[in-house]
Amino acid sequence: MNLAQKLGYPENTKLLIIHADDAGLSHSENQATIKALQNGSVNSYSIMVPCAWFYEIATFAKNNPQFDCGIHLTLTCEWENYKFAPILPASEVSSLTDQNGYFHKNRADFKNNAKPAEIKKELIAQIEKALQFGIQPSHLDSHMCSVGVTPEILEIYKELGETYNLPVFINRQFVESISLSTEKYNFENTLLADNLIIGNFADFEKGELKKSYQEALDSIAPGFNVFLLHLAFDDYEMKGITINHPNFGSAWRQIDFDFFTSQECKTKLQENNIQLITWSDILEIR
Amino acid sequence: MNLAQKLGYPENTKLLIIHADDAGLSHSENQATIKALQNGSVNSYSIMVPCAWFYEIATFAKNNPQFDCGIHLTLTCEWENYKFAPILPASEVSSLTDQNGYFHKNRADFKNNAKPAEIKKELIAQIEKALQFGIQPSHLDSHMCSVGVTPEILEIYKELGETYNLPVFINRQFVESISLSTEKYNFENTLLADNLIIGNFADFEKGELKKSYQEALDSIAPGFNVFLLHLAFDDYEMKGITINHPNFGSAWRQIDFDFFTSQECKTKLQENNIQLITWSDILEIR
Repeated sequence: MNLAQKLGYPENTKLLIIHADDAGLSHSENQATIKALQNGSVNSYSIMVPCAWFYEIATFAKNNPQFDCGIHLTLTCEWENYKFAPILPASEVSSLTDQNGYFHKNRADFKNNAKPAEIKKELIAQIEKALQFGIQPSHLDSHMCSVGVTPEILEIYKELGETYNLPVFINRQFVESISLSTEKYNFENTLLADNLIIGNFADFEKGELKKSYQEALDSIAPGFNVFLLHLAFDDYEMKGITINHPNFGSAWRQIDFDFFTSQECKTKLQENNIQLITWSDILEIR
Repeated sequence: MNLAQKLGYPENTKLLIIHADDAGLSHSENQATIKALQNGSVNSYSIMVPCAWFYEIATFAKNNPQFDCGIHLTLTCEWENYKFAPILPASEVSSLTDQNGYFHKNRADFKNNAKPAEIKKELIAQIEKALQFGIQPSHLDSHMCSVGVTPEILEIYKELGETYNLPVFINRQFVESISLSTEKYNFENTLLADNLIIGNFADFEKGELKKSYQEALDSIAPGFNVFLLHLAFDDYEMKGITINHPNFGSAWRQIDFDFFTSQECKTKLQENNIQLITWSDILEIR
């Protein structure tokens, strides 16, 4: 039986989770995410525990368990002026930080410095803090897919899924595309998302991000699909956070918000017979 | 000789520092503060080291040593949804935090829980982090004047000023008005600001905050005056931070910004023969 059948749908069903990353990053990100869960087509999100707006979104998550809420395990910080750091004391996880005590800026620096034992310790601390705040996580996923840089780190991530009995979001093609290792990954006994759908920078630059989303929904394949979004408003705070970083920048995030809260998106989901599912559905049939 | 004379002015000079608290709190706070320093009448500001936007303002401070920049020693967090915590590991300063690991919300909770040794340790860590980031502080001051709650805590604050050879901002009347102690303060051998000028909530509620600022400048007394401001834009981020807290809320901060970047303010300073001075001036004649 494939995932669709296990969930009680026909074999060829187009299953889809519409997921928003990066909750907790900022007030803008939190509020756009909340609005898109409540009124839009988004049905899953995940929270960055080390970020300054964690408390606001954790409070929402605790009071709104009807929405799938994952933990967006965070090991890198891509922004120029807005920084975040491990939640463990710097002295305990110094391999995870730059000279200022903040997370490394990109996957390469992370891969070249981070010690597996410190990665594991920090990720456990993030999960435990989320639990302590009353969040009932539906799954784990990874900010910038930093856990995908080597098979060894991906194993830590999978192991945490086992430990906490949570599905972990993994798309094989994506992990292999961002891999910084020549070693082979082991995807046996792992639930893999068949397709990761995510905007690309070329489309954004051409002003065709929305069009690419429309086309993606029109051509979605049967199987387990995950649409990965970043929801925020193109406001002063987000412009400040994403300065000099138009890739997944504030204008991009506003487009994500606008489209995935539109009637057009809802209609496309219906017309294309797309079946929305959640991580909680998956957790139930494990 | 009084302070004016030591600085080379006539005895009865109206000395004034126009100071902005809370830099580092948010992007909005940082940018409003920077604009008011560059184009307005504000000539001093201080940075909250534990806050999420510290890096942005620390970078500005490092690159703009011409502006007086203090360390806004932080031991409390007054906001409902936006929280900050000690920079030292929670386990080392647990008396400074609430059940979620964030700073206590008000001076009373702080006073009733905080252990002096942990206060001192955390404040040293904040100062050292600012130094490590290349900030050359002009003075120390205290967020919400939390260090003023008891004579014992105020002594720690004064001692840090000695240790780091920095003036500490103290106004006797204000400290005594917010005191939560029956013990006597010792203000001997301490440089005291004669007058602390700060907006009050009744004026804000009546829509007369700006008017109160105009009147304050028109009636400023000879001596060492400090005008205490909170500069930010009344934008989405600041509305989120200051939700349910109109006292020093986002609308208030926009009024502060608007008035202290206006030509009217500059004219009033001139017409009233107000002599702007800086903490650096004070440091030089010590």
